[in-house]
Amino acid sequence: MRIDIITVLPELLQSPFEASILKRAIEANLVEVHFHNLRDYTTDNYKSVDDYQFGGGAGMVMMIEPIDKCISKLQSERSYDEIIYMTPDGERLNQGIANQVSLKENIIILCGHYKGVDQRVRDKFITREISIGDYVLSGGELGAAVLCDAVIRLIPGVLGNETSALTDSFQDNLLAPPIYTRPRDYKGMQVPEILFSGNFPKIEQWREEQAYLRTKERRPDLLDE
Amino acid sequence: MRIDIITVLPELLQSPFEASILKRAIEANLVEVHFHNLRDYTTDNYKSVDDYQFGGGAGMVMMIEPIDKCISKLQSERSYDEIIYMTPDGERLNQGIANQVSLKENIIILCGHYKGVDQRVRDKFITREISIGDYVLSGGELGAAVLCDAVIRLIPGVLGNETSALTDSFQDNLLAPPIYTRPRDYKGMQVPEILFSGNFPKIEQWREEQAYLRTKERRPDLLDE
Repeated sequence: MRIDIITVLPELLQSPFEASILKRAIEANLVEVHFHNLRDYTTDNYKSVDDYQFGGGAGMVMMIEPIDKCISKLQSERSYDEIIYMTPDGERLNQGIANQVSLKENIIILCGHYKGVDQRVRDKFITREISIGDYVLSGGELGAAVLCDAVIRLIPGVLGNETSALTDSFQDNLLAPPIYTRPRDYKGMQVPEILFSGNFPKIEQWREEQAYLRTKERRPDLLDE
Repeated sequence: MRIDIITVLPELLQSPFEASILKRAIEANLVEVHFHNLRDYTTDNYKSVDDYQFGGGAGMVMMIEPIDKCISKLQSERSYDEIIYMTPDGERLNQGIANQVSLKENIIILCGHYKGVDQRVRDKFITREISIGDYVLSGGELGAAVLCDAVIRLIPGVLGNETSALTDSFQDNLLAPPIYTRPRDYKGMQVPEILFSGNFPKIEQWREEQAYLRTKERRPDLLDE
């Protein structure tokens, strides 16, 4: 899989891709991630990527021309399955969308910044608009990092068996059950007895019940799906 | 406002706090952000922060002891309004929660990693569990960065007037309307005429209509709230 990220702040994205699972996936050649600084595609001396909005109002708007130049250059080099725009009014990312995107070969992620991009960018280039949640961030960069993390960890080979994604929350519409590790007694706080029974079918059943109870209490909407 | 982030991967969090609005807010002393490496609170030679789960199963669990030590040290220095755990089964972050958290004085954010933390950490220390969305990430670090970004930009003085948060999506349960900037004609794609009318009440009315239409089409659930 190849991911091209278009941004005005590539430096903001650095550390999340240089640590932990994303780093290991990149080093193992399971995914390629390329950053493109939109300022490299500007034509004026000031390297402007944004301008005031037509009709007045607070907030700058990202111009279509540098974005067009950057996307067109990438498209001249290979074909892309999706050109994704990170925006709070996009469809809300969930585990199902992450699963879908993880099956793509080449994708572009465009990070909005300031007030967002000129609407014509969305009309002409964007094939999918994704929001990571119902809140506003200062830019699409963190959203892009979140999308990449959610997607890349699903690529076969990225997670070892010991960190298997199959028992994660949401993969079966249930939240994960409570988990415990040593010590068995910590300042009087005990681990549930059942976990020491050695009876694995019973432990599995307890975990399923706990997962169901937690989901019913916290997220009954997931059970309706 | 002071934010203390407890993590096993402080290096992952670096760049988001060294760029853009978060950097400016920290430099202007509008917020203090401190990272605490959980490995500094371990007691064994291997600096272990995790162990196998009781009862068997894939995935490591973060142990209670280093977390207890870290939180207790912070609490001995000042009192905290919230101790937040980032977890996919927490309440889903939205703009209202971001507004609430932005009014706090001191908060701790605990980032889960691996399969999550020992349940007793959640029972004993955590006052609020927050999820940034219905998907699984490799750790709570990106979630913590997202929460900080959503919260810090709401602190008075962080955003200039020109990037005012008041017209953002969600602040009034409506998505934002389309926006446009120069050029007026880009390869035949035009900006809507109304934006050049100079009639600002009419432009405002058009924007409200567009915001309503977009919300109705994309997120009718927001209109029900």
